[in-house]
Amino acid sequence: MNLHKCAELLRAQDQILILTHNYPDGDTVGSAGALCLALRRMGKTAYICDNPQYTEKFIPFIEGLVAPKDFKPAFIVAADVAAERMLPYGFSGRVALCIDHHPTNSRYADELLLDGDRAACGEIVMKLIKHMTGEITVREAELLYIALSTDTACFRYGNTDARALQDGAKLVELGVDNDKLNTIFFRKLSPARMKLEGMIYDSMSFHHNNTVVIAVVSQEMIASSGATEGDMEDLAGIANRAQGAEIAVTIRELEDGASKVSVRTVNGIDASRICAFFGGGGHPVASGCKIDEKPEKARALLLDVIGGVLHERNTSC
Amino acid sequence: MNLHKCAELLRAQDQILILTHNYPDGDTVGSAGALCLALRRMGKTAYICDNPQYTEKFIPFIEGLVAPKDFKPAFIVAADVAAERMLPYGFSGRVALCIDHHPTNSRYADELLLDGDRAACGEIVMKLIKHMTGEITVREAELLYIALSTDTACFRYGNTDARALQDGAKLVELGVDNDKLNTIFFRKLSPARMKLEGMIYDSMSFHHNNTVVIAVVSQEMIASSGATEGDMEDLAGIANRAQGAEIAVTIRELEDGASKVSVRTVNGIDASRICAFFGGGGHPVASGCKIDEKPEKARALLLDVIGGVLHERNTSC
Repeated sequence: MNLHKCAELLRAQDQILILTHNYPDGDTVGSAGALCLALRRMGKTAYICDNPQYTEKFIPFIEGLVAPKDFKPAFIVAADVAAERMLPYGFSGRVALCIDHHPTNSRYADELLLDGDRAACGEIVMKLIKHMTGEITVREAELLYIALSTDTACFRYGNTDARALQDGAKLVELGVDNDKLNTIFFRKLSPARMKLEGMIYDSMSFHHNNTVVIAVVSQEMIASSGATEGDMEDLAGIANRAQGAEIAVTIRELEDGASKVSVRTVNGIDASRICAFFGGGGHPVASGCKIDEKPEKARALLLDVIGGVLHERNTSC
Repeated sequence: MNLHKCAELLRAQDQILILTHNYPDGDTVGSAGALCLALRRMGKTAYICDNPQYTEKFIPFIEGLVAPKDFKPAFIVAADVAAERMLPYGFSGRVALCIDHHPTNSRYADELLLDGDRAACGEIVMKLIKHMTGEITVREAELLYIALSTDTACFRYGNTDARALQDGAKLVELGVDNDKLNTIFFRKLSPARMKLEGMIYDSMSFHHNNTVVIAVVSQEMIASSGATEGDMEDLAGIANRAQGAEIAVTIRELEDGASKVSVRTVNGIDASRICAFFGGGGHPVASGCKIDEKPEKARALLLDVIGGVLHERNTSC
């Protein structure tokens, strides 16, 4: 559906609950929170779903927005939720409207407002709020800035197009203290996270002329760094910082000693093929699998498979 | 002088040399490079100064722009050079025009185009080129993007206002591959830099309830990481990543065993006062000094001074 129809649909509803996806990130929280505030300005009762997974950083920004346990929604919206399996427990088949920017959206909702060409779902919500109410408040703009900036890693990632930068400029013009938000979300690391990152750097092994890098996050490292769940965000991105790496692998030791593996690739190397060898899968550039071995053994097994994939590529060119 | 007068002045000149500042960063290189290209489009002979300090990352972007040894300039411009002592050797008293964004510019040049309210000098050069030629080429836009993005740490720092984001959007619209540039300047770390950062994280000590953090960079760490000069950029920024730190100190061991100290502060704590105890100085939020002791001894001396400064603050409130 288009923006206008979506606005019409929301105008006709009340008692609205907005869902964020599992392992909520800034885009889902910021999109849901801003939409919730705008709907309240329109006179409606609106909440975002409670989610025990909201990490500490987000809490101050969603104060007063989380639904009380006894809230009975009449209309359920999902923000930035690409597929039904990413919905919080108990909402399958109940979503009336989904607002999303994932081109892969599985179309599980009754109605879908989708723009697969946007860096963040927050950009779509920004247009929707403007369309519905003619304005955007500072608090809404702040949540939208969190959505946009976290999904682009503060305008660094490849999804940052001219429109994303323009939207960022508009939100700052609306009064967002981007310096404050950037400090919270991008500039600062907790002492535990610093310790953990240092250990992860130290754990990295480089192979095939530095085109393959493998990092390990062991239970011992997590414990000795003092890292909590909030310190564990985007661990797979750390190995991916390595210059020249075409395949960046992160092996996280699970509590039972098994290995959870994340693979990130560039230059046309298929991450999902590497993971498929171990029964996993995902996207061509970002995939995962589980290996029932300790990390060091998993590293050796992965290197075997990766060696084969690279050999195949080199001989097929 | 204003933009129009500056454009007139440049139009009347030829055989132009553009100077970058010592320890050149992206803003001085990008500003000088883009201006040089635009002046050539205007039919002029123009070069940027040779500088043995250009780090590897910049080299591909200034290809063909560096002045040959025998170039005899008739008009010398300085880009992003705030003070005479930041000029390359031999240019004191010879600068006809300075284009700058530092409010502290010491007015050493005959003419000055200054906008102290801009995040990067590149933004002023962008307006100047547009004014002089009516357009900006992709290669010029690329250099201006390097200027703007490096001076704002890719739109993260507090100097990023709505105009900086708008200028970023314009440059991307002009055809800049921001993903490629961000990968080079912000996303990737060399294996040696990763190793070194890991060791620096590991060296950090936290004091006064984590409000004071001290990092050490020893000669042994530099050697064992394999870091080269290009891997040593902004080491002082690493300690400054610590969440909650009001005073972030980096002690770098010099080749003779002495300690070069950088102090970064927030919340009104005067970094230059801390450094003055050791005969150093600088700005209220960023200062430096040299201590003729090994790093561990320097750390103890600094902690004494910092303890005093904090005690004074706490008792004077």
